[in-house]
Amino acid sequence: MDIPERIETGMQRALRYATANGCPPILARALRHAVFPGGARIRPRLCLAVAAACGDREPGAADCAAIAIELLHCASLVHDDMPCFDNALQRRGAPSVHAQFGEEIALLVGDGLIVAAFETVARETQQTPLLTAPLIATIANAVGTPYGLVAGQAWESEPEINITAYHRAKTASLFSGAVSTGAIAAGGNPRDWLGLADALGAAYQVADDLYDAAGGQNDGAGKPAGQDSRNGKPNIVTSIGLEAALDRLKRLVAEAVDNVPDCPGADTFRAMIRNEATRLMPKTLATTAA
Amino acid sequence: MDIPERIETGMQRALRYATANGCPPILARALRHAVFPGGARIRPRLCLAVAAACGDREPGAADCAAIAIELLHCASLVHDDMPCFDNALQRRGAPSVHAQFGEEIALLVGDGLIVAAFETVARETQQTPLLTAPLIATIANAVGTPYGLVAGQAWESEPEINITAYHRAKTASLFSGAVSTGAIAAGGNPRDWLGLADALGAAYQVADDLYDAAGGQNDGAGKPAGQDSRNGKPNIVTSIGLEAALDRLKRLVAEAVDNVPDCPGADTFRAMIRNEATRLMPKTLATTAA
Repeated sequence: MDIPERIETGMQRALRYATANGCPPILARALRHAVFPGGARIRPRLCLAVAAACGDREPGAADCAAIAIELLHCASLVHDDMPCFDNALQRRGAPSVHAQFGEEIALLVGDGLIVAAFETVARETQQTPLLTAPLIATIANAVGTPYGLVAGQAWESEPEINITAYHRAKTASLFSGAVSTGAIAAGGNPRDWLGLADALGAAYQVADDLYDAAGGQNDGAGKPAGQDSRNGKPNIVTSIGLEAALDRLKRLVAEAVDNVPDCPGADTFRAMIRNEATRLMPKTLATTAA
Repeated sequence: MDIPERIETGMQRALRYATANGCPPILARALRHAVFPGGARIRPRLCLAVAAACGDREPGAADCAAIAIELLHCASLVHDDMPCFDNALQRRGAPSVHAQFGEEIALLVGDGLIVAAFETVARETQQTPLLTAPLIATIANAVGTPYGLVAGQAWESEPEINITAYHRAKTASLFSGAVSTGAIAAGGNPRDWLGLADALGAAYQVADDLYDAAGGQNDGAGKPAGQDSRNGKPNIVTSIGLEAALDRLKRLVAEAVDNVPDCPGADTFRAMIRNEATRLMPKTLATTAA
């Protein structure tokens, strides 16, 4: 199976467990709505690409880490779309979970997907028990408090935002988690991959801000353009301008490529990042920046 | 250390990690508000009592399972109190998390505590790696979908409630998880403890309904009396009457005692349950039912 197929197969399997016979029917439908059809599945693709670059010693462990990370990303989108945050009615061209199923169900879908993420890792690493705790600790660190996604979102409620901590926690942490777990699952050293993870996480944050400012649908996030400024959120294009933001994106992608450590699949991995970079950019800007 | 001290020490330790230096300050305060001071800590006490009855072979593993279960219980209270569910302004005699910190922070506190629960198990079982996956899978099963807490809450959004599935998922599942993880951590067989877990979970559901109907503060849940009927939720006292509900509680406690399996600490454990049963009952009813 190629990487996209491994991801969709794994997501289907995780959702079969989460919505098994006996699940309240509306919750089951809403869980599926939150996860299928997916966006670009950038984070799990990154996780599996790192695992492949390191030799993919335990593909089952890499798969479940990738799936857990994508389930957590979906959970964060469902909760972020809720009225008390972005109040977004659309996601990936369809109604957001709370718009379609109500706030109660949206809250529970997010909670259920968080639990399903950790359950997936526990279930799928029974043959590789020495990987269970490191994978779960790494993933939890990327999504929880004090430094993960949850903390990133919480910075928006502070009277003074620590912008570096905010971006690192809200966007970079899950990229970093994807890279680290890919390395861990394949017996690589996650420390060797930290420079790459930081650069890629920052690049994705800039790309996301470019989408928001320039318009067009971002495959990864799937949120409507202009939402940041409507919600008064920090956006790099507003602070430094479009040209400078595009420059920064190019520099960050080059930095990511430079930071790929020595490993069996380093060249393939570098090519993948360059390719991904074009994909990350809004189509209207891709020619200017390529 | 005795059981209550092990629990409070473990909760403090888990919260030190979750609110470590760099955590957004409001989120850190709200996380602590959700967890301290605690209620009766019934579920973690049960977990550690089962582990003790089985010989407590790996006290560190039992501790982290107990802490994870209590963190998840606290998370569920924070989310249940939110406006889209119970809209409760009070919890354990203090403002609920959303009343004090706003809806955004309450949503994130719940998410953060769910993550912290699994992170705690992963962090604290590094010396006992064969226990990590079974503990996390058991806990996730008790709180997630299709059969755990999240599913239980979701039944309230269905046009037709499956009452048995609802009570089992909403209340009994976490008791069952507490009992099972206590046994697993101590090398016991969780299957031997299922009868006890079922009876205790059902007893607690009846006790909770009695509190709601009879008034008085329930140490465990800490929710104001009469909330179920105001929110149109099923309550056993409304369906079968006060006397019959008290009878059922007594029968369930006796059933729990009868279902304690052979193990080194069976007698102490039976005495603990009888003692707990008195504690479970509203003070105004305790003399009638004892």
